[in-house]
Amino acid sequence: MNWIQTKTTFLRRFSPDARYLIGVSGGRDSVALLRCMVDLGYRKLVVCHLDHQLRGRSSGVDARFVEKLAAKYDVDFELGSTNVSALSKKKKMSIETAAREARYSFFAGVAKRRRCHTIFLAHHADDLVETFLINLFRGAAMTGLAAMREVSKRQVHDVDLTIVRPLLSTWRDEIDLYVREHRLKFREDASNKNLTPLRNRVRCRVIPHVERELGRKIRMNIWRTARIAAEEESWIDAQLKVSLNRDGNLNVKELRVLPVALQRRTILKWLRAQDVPEIGFEAIERVRSLVDTAARVAKVNLAQDRHVRRRAGKLFIDL
Amino acid sequence: MNWIQTKTTFLRRFSPDARYLIGVSGGRDSVALLRCMVDLGYRKLVVCHLDHQLRGRSSGVDARFVEKLAAKYDVDFELGSTNVSALSKKKKMSIETAAREARYSFFAGVAKRRRCHTIFLAHHADDLVETFLINLFRGAAMTGLAAMREVSKRQVHDVDLTIVRPLLSTWRDEIDLYVREHRLKFREDASNKNLTPLRNRVRCRVIPHVERELGRKIRMNIWRTARIAAEEESWIDAQLKVSLNRDGNLNVKELRVLPVALQRRTILKWLRAQDVPEIGFEAIERVRSLVDTAARVAKVNLAQDRHVRRRAGKLFIDL
Repeated sequence: MNWIQTKTTFLRRFSPDARYLIGVSGGRDSVALLRCMVDLGYRKLVVCHLDHQLRGRSSGVDARFVEKLAAKYDVDFELGSTNVSALSKKKKMSIETAAREARYSFFAGVAKRRRCHTIFLAHHADDLVETFLINLFRGAAMTGLAAMREVSKRQVHDVDLTIVRPLLSTWRDEIDLYVREHRLKFREDASNKNLTPLRNRVRCRVIPHVERELGRKIRMNIWRTARIAAEEESWIDAQLKVSLNRDGNLNVKELRVLPVALQRRTILKWLRAQDVPEIGFEAIERVRSLVDTAARVAKVNLAQDRHVRRRAGKLFIDL
Repeated sequence: MNWIQTKTTFLRRFSPDARYLIGVSGGRDSVALLRCMVDLGYRKLVVCHLDHQLRGRSSGVDARFVEKLAAKYDVDFELGSTNVSALSKKKKMSIETAAREARYSFFAGVAKRRRCHTIFLAHHADDLVETFLINLFRGAAMTGLAAMREVSKRQVHDVDLTIVRPLLSTWRDEIDLYVREHRLKFREDASNKNLTPLRNRVRCRVIPHVERELGRKIRMNIWRTARIAAEEESWIDAQLKVSLNRDGNLNVKELRVLPVALQRRTILKWLRAQDVPEIGFEAIERVRSLVDTAARVAKVNLAQDRHVRRRAGKLFIDL
């Protein structure tokens, strides 16, 4: 019996005979996922490893470790390399954001070259809970509470990626047990998740403290909330019907008649489609203020010197 | 200038010339709200105070304090009294839940007698944040994340109440300042909110700890998330179109074609309409399992010895 199969039925949608990408950092979680998928009969996997150039010599060791692992399981291997630290400075992003962008760029490149648009990632239940809390505390409500779904779509540089997370119902403890039972080797700290001290603080200090204070376990409850939020957001997104003009503008009149919840989601979707970075609640509310019939201003600022203007009943983005 | 007016525009919808109920415990927040509404020109207020019989002799002192306050402002006063402790035992509810039920019963009674269905309550921004966290940690995602809105409807014993919370964008600090500036007297600990040690732990220990660990303020971010959640839930609720049969059953076929997010919300709405208590995520998921074409069971359990059965393509509740 395989421990993913007992938890997920949605994997049936992904035939073991097809080709899939799988992101493998070399850390415990992705090593466990790879083994698990191989055991489930997925033979045409393409192991994708991005060297973030963040850990000096260790980065190269991680890459060789993953390459050997792929060879051992007789599956393909794709290596990419990005100077994430330089990228983060250049684009004025946090290291974590830059690392994520770099990974998705790399995945999209491989997807295009290999003509294979589905990628398995090893995010698990604890990741979901920690991400939910981090985004809650950072105020990323519009863009982050439902960030992780079992199956989701993401467009990266004209490439449509389908992201599949088979471990989203599996807890770290269960993965640890699986790793021990199968005597899997992995690279400590290779996981990209460990790039962020914030996540470690939430994991090791915030959650245990709250559990002690309240005298109850909270992870499962937050996990449930995150799952509900993901499905509700996904449904709301599917309801968004305001059409973007061919030139990428947004019709003010159509927007104005929507309930506030849909105005916000529509603006979010529009800004994302225009590749606007770091879209937070405040930015969305600023854009939304242009929709008000009584709005006195016709221009609001976004990050990185970009602006939204209202002109002739339409919203435009200035580059 | 009045500090509520600067924060809220929605109060314009409630003409100062009409009659409104206002819940006043005698605590700082409700005393501030009452004063503020009076200053705004609301003259036909009916001050509603429920004695919860939880604080021994203090309960009666609170009631007399509020009665005098109403007399001072020349507005009406309604007093109710409920043995909340007995109610909590009888209905197997927590003290907090029993207290809330008792208050709403009392408000509904006054609303009916006075033919006035709108009540102002003094919940503020910190209450919203704390309630959000408590419900998140307790796993009340389906029923609690969006529990507080500026304007919401609630049906209590055939009475439709409109609940208005003018202070939802005002922080405790701002209320403190207002109370000091106006030299308002209030009863320490009279606030019903202090009934729960859980809320105090979240307020005094959990939030400050998280802020220290993360090195940032989190209240405003959680407040935003709670506001977004409230509006999205409210919109989703408005979309629920599955009709209940006249006899209160739920059609399985109609339910089955809905996306999961709407199945959950529809079941929640249905169980609430049938007065099922303590509806959590697990209960909803159990009921949802009856909708699956492959479901082998035709009966699932709810709290307090109630059951849901599937029969002839419909879901029924057994009392």
